[in-house]
Amino acid sequence: MRRYIKLFAILTAVMLALVLALALFVSFRETPGVAPRYIFLFVGDGFGYPQLTLATLYNSSVLGGDELALNSFEYIGSAYTENTYSQITESAGAISAIASGIKTDNESLNIDFEGKKHETIAEKLKRQLGYKIGVISSDNLNRATPAGFYAHQKSRYDTMAIILELAESGFEYFGGSDIVGFISTESMAGKGLRDFLGEHGYRYINTREDIEKLGSAAADGKVVAVSPMLDPYGTIPYAIDKERHADSFTLAEHTKKCAEFLYGDGKNGFFIVVEGGKIDWACHANDAATLVHEVIDFDGAIKAALAFYHRHPKETLIIVTGDHETGGLSIGYSETGTRLYLHQLAEQTISYSEFSFLVQGYRRTGTPFEEVLPEIRRYFGIGPYDGENADFYLGYGDMEKLRAAYDMSMTDPSERPFTMSEYMAYGFYDPLTMTIIKLTNNKAGISWGTYSHSALPVPVLAMGNGAENFTGFYKNTEIFAKLKKLLDLD
Amino acid sequence: MRRYIKLFAILTAVMLALVLALALFVSFRETPGVAPRYIFLFVGDGFGYPQLTLATLYNSSVLGGDELALNSFEYIGSAYTENTYSQITESAGAISAIASGIKTDNESLNIDFEGKKHETIAEKLKRQLGYKIGVISSDNLNRATPAGFYAHQKSRYDTMAIILELAESGFEYFGGSDIVGFISTESMAGKGLRDFLGEHGYRYINTREDIEKLGSAAADGKVVAVSPMLDPYGTIPYAIDKERHADSFTLAEHTKKCAEFLYGDGKNGFFIVVEGGKIDWACHANDAATLVHEVIDFDGAIKAALAFYHRHPKETLIIVTGDHETGGLSIGYSETGTRLYLHQLAEQTISYSEFSFLVQGYRRTGTPFEEVLPEIRRYFGIGPYDGENADFYLGYGDMEKLRAAYDMSMTDPSERPFTMSEYMAYGFYDPLTMTIIKLTNNKAGISWGTYSHSALPVPVLAMGNGAENFTGFYKNTEIFAKLKKLLDLD
Repeated sequence: MRRYIKLFAILTAVMLALVLALALFVSFRETPGVAPRYIFLFVGDGFGYPQLTLATLYNSSVLGGDELALNSFEYIGSAYTENTYSQITESAGAISAIASGIKTDNESLNIDFEGKKHETIAEKLKRQLGYKIGVISSDNLNRATPAGFYAHQKSRYDTMAIILELAESGFEYFGGSDIVGFISTESMAGKGLRDFLGEHGYRYINTREDIEKLGSAAADGKVVAVSPMLDPYGTIPYAIDKERHADSFTLAEHTKKCAEFLYGDGKNGFFIVVEGGKIDWACHANDAATLVHEVIDFDGAIKAALAFYHRHPKETLIIVTGDHETGGLSIGYSETGTRLYLHQLAEQTISYSEFSFLVQGYRRTGTPFEEVLPEIRRYFGIGPYDGENADFYLGYGDMEKLRAAYDMSMTDPSERPFTMSEYMAYGFYDPLTMTIIKLTNNKAGISWGTYSHSALPVPVLAMGNGAENFTGFYKNTEIFAKLKKLLDLD
Repeated sequence: MRRYIKLFAILTAVMLALVLALALFVSFRETPGVAPRYIFLFVGDGFGYPQLTLATLYNSSVLGGDELALNSFEYIGSAYTENTYSQITESAGAISAIASGIKTDNESLNIDFEGKKHETIAEKLKRQLGYKIGVISSDNLNRATPAGFYAHQKSRYDTMAIILELAESGFEYFGGSDIVGFISTESMAGKGLRDFLGEHGYRYINTREDIEKLGSAAADGKVVAVSPMLDPYGTIPYAIDKERHADSFTLAEHTKKCAEFLYGDGKNGFFIVVEGGKIDWACHANDAATLVHEVIDFDGAIKAALAFYHRHPKETLIIVTGDHETGGLSIGYSETGTRLYLHQLAEQTISYSEFSFLVQGYRRTGTPFEEVLPEIRRYFGIGPYDGENADFYLGYGDMEKLRAAYDMSMTDPSERPFTMSEYMAYGFYDPLTMTIIKLTNNKAGISWGTYSHSALPVPVLAMGNGAENFTGFYKNTEIFAKLKKLLDLD
């Protein structure tokens, strides 16, 4: 009899253990799980579905490159960007919506109509969970989008106030393009940006060697890591112009370095924002070739985050979004019908920006039209019919437009007519450059609706821990709300 | 002692029961679940993210309507539409990709380059699972998109072969716009479409009364239910023109009726395709006002499916997608910068199509420009400045364009010049109508890149049983593949 009792006791214990194990398993599956410790938020400025698509098609059909990381995300949402004043948002308002969840004045950063400052998701993560914070941008580190994570200002153009907030943020890693517009205050007399940041505990470094040497935030403290070899705007050169410049430090390199630097010994979580800032600039200028290279460069940074994700799949969340679409980009054009000729874009090896500088040179030296034409052929692969370039030569009408634009570009800007019709033709850009860009874009089958932003919602791509929360259609403020909820922040 | 044994026995039994219950619970949660019995596939022809967005913004800011059903979908995917010959697809190729999962010749329907016919998802569901099938379209029932679910032809323009396949499909419900282009064969001499369909077991009905009377497919057999009050193309009039026509039978009404008809006594599953066909037509004509009304009408049909879904949530799957984007629609325009003036679109109360007919009348009667202007104001709310309409009057340049277009429209079409520059200005449409449409669209802040399709991927919205499979980026052929897998079809 004792034997039976023993048997029953053992059986009961085994059953009990099974019940417990199953209950644990079920409850583990039911609970939302542990919040992500490592969060990457990629913001493509001006990055909408058309930008993603054009880069994808160009990458696969012209470059024959590996699939873009952008297309590997499992969860997709779409965020409407409508702002307080307009259905088309401006950048400061858009990033405030994403960073602190408020809809505010167009040029305000994380400050509402009543003047109340709102803590950003980065500040919350730092204060409440002790996450280390990285802010990376190919745009200037004190411009609207990066500033959206540390600044609280009525005007995005209050440069010194923003730089002061950067210095007082305590964020561990700022990386990418330079801080611009710093002016020494009286108390700072004689001191430059480096000293100013130093007084706030930041090391300002701007050589590849120094950036590569960085160990971890825990050991080395806070840094402002600026890429070497910047363009005249203090930003990382356009990817399309890279070959003409000595090696800069790319968005992808910053992303990789920042993740290592913040991860350190693995004792803390981190939140890294990476802005592909010059996607927007290229789209304002309606320059498709510069755009696709910029998106592919941005994708490289996402690949760096994916590499980290694959080492920490359960603890990492990657989100990719945009603040708004720029340019009203259409991947189609009346004249080319149902065909695209994207290889035409590959003929372009210079950004609108850099070519505009060349045109300034032509004006100064009085270079005649006939001598400019070979340069146009050299950088854009188009020109009048010469028996060799039968595919994309410029016909009579095109040549007339080009000549008219050349004449305009050779005139001193202060003496040029500027009516709506000039604006529609050239925007605020160099006439010759814009005419070439429009011709090559149209010949590739690409057209643009505006030099400004559009109301198209932005994609929200999510992967990893918590990614499933980002599906569906919602306002851009929900990106903040979803992160806040997922991370159980106040 | 016996008492203890009893106690242990009871405890063991209880534990065993718990283990079983938990195991069942877990396994239930683990298995993919039963495949959906009721499937709605909505295909907006020419329906991309810009079309969805413009309708959403117009609906909320101008109409103040309830949220569109389109924005309530939880899962979003994006489908690339690239075709065999071009990165911009044509409609027959696109629908073949969705319906039978093949990439084929541009104008072919479900037949590959080797001439092999491919069974469509609708045919598979009918043959393998006994699902009843409904095909609804605001476009003609024998045009490419609806035909994509029953036809297998080298050319989408082989009208009689397609109509024969329709008649032989055995699908239970065809509804919406009329079948066009039927020509009696010799053996059918003297018989019309109604007789032809009757010989194939179909009742052809085209009055509201007859359609409303329909009971169930099980009791009443197969029908071709054509909306009364069609436009000159044999299609349901544009939603924007509805008020000038007696009540037709809308896409939403067809969707509701078809679901009841196929559901019957609930013994079989069903698959219903609903095409919003004239979204595409409006976009080809770059007519934003007509477009938004058409998308909102399409959304009404989706709401009808949602009503069914709420009664059968576990058994229903709703998917909404497009075959391609049409028009390269930008919700932004250079001249209007970061503002939209969508209420301008509300001034338009006629489609480009119907206004074109009016213009033909003006030509026949020789109506002078001065008498046409009040008609333009009446239907589009724009005209020269008259002290009252200060917001959107036409300036000197606009009036010049309008006058030139009027002169062109008053010329017999066979005597008009037609070069690329006329095509760029008016497409293949009436010059005066297109000029008005462009002016009002631009004043609203809307611009278009092409009269043709674009390469933008289409949204794939999913709700209900199996919806989670449709997230991410993929080719449009995956819509077929995912359905096939979900339903475990050969």
